[in-house]
Amino acid sequence: MKADYQQLLNFVRSIFESIGCPQEDAALAAHVLVSADARGIDSHGVARLAGYVRLYDNGRLNTKPEVKILHETPSTALVDGDRGLGLVVAPKAMEIATQKATMAGTGWVAVQNSNHFGIAGYHALMAVEKGMIGWAMTHAAPLVTPTFSREKLLGTNPIAVGIPANEEPAFLADFASTAVAYGKLEILQRKGLDTPQGWVQDKEGRPCQDAFAIKNGGALLPLGGDREHGSHKGYGLGAIVDILSGVLSGANFGPWVPPFATAGFMQAGETVGKGTGHFLGAMRVDAFRPADAFKSDMDKWIRRFRSADAVEGKSVIIPGDPERELEQIRRLDGIPLLDPVIADLQALATRFSVNFKLD
Amino acid sequence: MKADYQQLLNFVRSIFESIGCPQEDAALAAHVLVSADARGIDSHGVARLAGYVRLYDNGRLNTKPEVKILHETPSTALVDGDRGLGLVVAPKAMEIATQKATMAGTGWVAVQNSNHFGIAGYHALMAVEKGMIGWAMTHAAPLVTPTFSREKLLGTNPIAVGIPANEEPAFLADFASTAVAYGKLEILQRKGLDTPQGWVQDKEGRPCQDAFAIKNGGALLPLGGDREHGSHKGYGLGAIVDILSGVLSGANFGPWVPPFATAGFMQAGETVGKGTGHFLGAMRVDAFRPADAFKSDMDKWIRRFRSADAVEGKSVIIPGDPERELEQIRRLDGIPLLDPVIADLQALATRFSVNFKLD
Repeated sequence: MKADYQQLLNFVRSIFESIGCPQEDAALAAHVLVSADARGIDSHGVARLAGYVRLYDNGRLNTKPEVKILHETPSTALVDGDRGLGLVVAPKAMEIATQKATMAGTGWVAVQNSNHFGIAGYHALMAVEKGMIGWAMTHAAPLVTPTFSREKLLGTNPIAVGIPANEEPAFLADFASTAVAYGKLEILQRKGLDTPQGWVQDKEGRPCQDAFAIKNGGALLPLGGDREHGSHKGYGLGAIVDILSGVLSGANFGPWVPPFATAGFMQAGETVGKGTGHFLGAMRVDAFRPADAFKSDMDKWIRRFRSADAVEGKSVIIPGDPERELEQIRRLDGIPLLDPVIADLQALATRFSVNFKLD
Repeated sequence: MKADYQQLLNFVRSIFESIGCPQEDAALAAHVLVSADARGIDSHGVARLAGYVRLYDNGRLNTKPEVKILHETPSTALVDGDRGLGLVVAPKAMEIATQKATMAGTGWVAVQNSNHFGIAGYHALMAVEKGMIGWAMTHAAPLVTPTFSREKLLGTNPIAVGIPANEEPAFLADFASTAVAYGKLEILQRKGLDTPQGWVQDKEGRPCQDAFAIKNGGALLPLGGDREHGSHKGYGLGAIVDILSGVLSGANFGPWVPPFATAGFMQAGETVGKGTGHFLGAMRVDAFRPADAFKSDMDKWIRRFRSADAVEGKSVIIPGDPERELEQIRRLDGIPLLDPVIADLQALATRFSVNFKLD
């Protein structure tokens, strides 16, 4: 089943309005959320809408946040998200980052007291649309073990960097610091299949191939998998993201990052800071080199990599290409939705008396 | 065989002076280089001294560079390394970054026209010594294939981030964006052993376990190894480092990054920019949060991770701990050197009439 892009956007906006978001915030949050579906990152799209509503139901979400700057310098700001939707707080923080960059060359914003912000790439692309290099990272509740750990201390902690080009579309790397996203485990669970080696470990910290590893006390592995294949690097990357998003912002960090509102995984426990944190950055290209020369060299970089001699039947992919191409298709042809997601959306439609229809 | 730390430092300084470096530059370059040996990153230490001299012999190194700012904003600078030693150019660029951060909150410096800068962690720690968060990255000659590529288009492209704490030593993540460092292949070559799976591919782009893969037309794999284990993330990370170090600085980039002066791998070919590039950053902690609160939370972060429940016989390592502990030992007990490295150093001693002795 497919949903029309614009209709889905309108529906999500109506739900956010129904829980009290101002019109402008609801439209922004809907745009961020449905962008994930359009770009094929279905795990971060409307599949999470019911979760955001559960956050609201549990008093963890302020739908009328006053996002404000707590401290600033010419190139930095600390922002309080006021327990708002990360989908709204992060774009507002990125707006501050790009304003700082306009004046000071770069702008860097640490955010505390926020919630899940959707896909990191959306926020990085906001800077790209202004001709800047954009950075976005966030931490998340602990599902990942550092190298040699049996305890889960880090989230999947994604980082996105978007870089503008001239004639070529922008470069956009957007990836979690784990070997694999949690969503891939869920797919295998549904199919009753094992995972490949190097994705998860069991509760004793031994390598395993159990798609239910996390439910059984195990964990996702950092990018690299094990020490021999560089898991300390994935752990290091996840740690950097956690420290910039959490410690530098005054949010929670490490194992104290509050969970997103998935069923049975709801309550935040002990806290060491305020809510969830993000770290966003914008760099003006012409703060370094003339923008034309930079963008023309980016075209050269992209074309050289895209045309590389590839292994048989494959081609070298520029980060961001597949998601952008899918977005163009799905905006026209509609967004496929899984049955359980449709059921969730229909329940929300009923609860808030909002019309929901599929193609 | 071991060399006394101070004697090795003096020897390296004398060699750099012998090829024309001013005293102050020679002392700085020696400090950066020998720091790598002291910290156990032997592949980036005095083992490369003969290579730097070969760069000089081949006219690719200016031993009296005028490192200058080509363009700047309050939080950024573009720096021309004037074909100097990266060992000297990068610390000078990091000095500019920390000055910018003092005034504007953060400072970001792209460097063109430089050479190999030693270990990234050294430069990141310069900011940490001033209580700041330090970033250092550099690209290198192509040894690595993007996911699905048969062509080597990226270097091992390391990134280092150093973060100060209060009572705990600083966090320092410093890692290449590959599954494994090239030096690990050399160790296996000497022993006649195969590599584990996931480190290298052959010239057709097929997984292989040949420690001589690169010499046989193959390549190092990005962190993650293959697509199923997230190699597109390691490729993305290496690409970000390449673009910030090379495209943003106006240096060469991708497959055009000139080789370091290892034997038989000497001449730079076609160029698309100036020399090798780096990207350095400094962020003042109190541009975001009060420094005391931040550093105290960093202590909490470090202690929580260090005390995590670990797999049997192991412990969770804080990035930077092993290298710092080894440095303390080697500064007192001396630095072990391999026979071929000793032979190289003795040849330099003879050529430049500099005294070289071991314990």
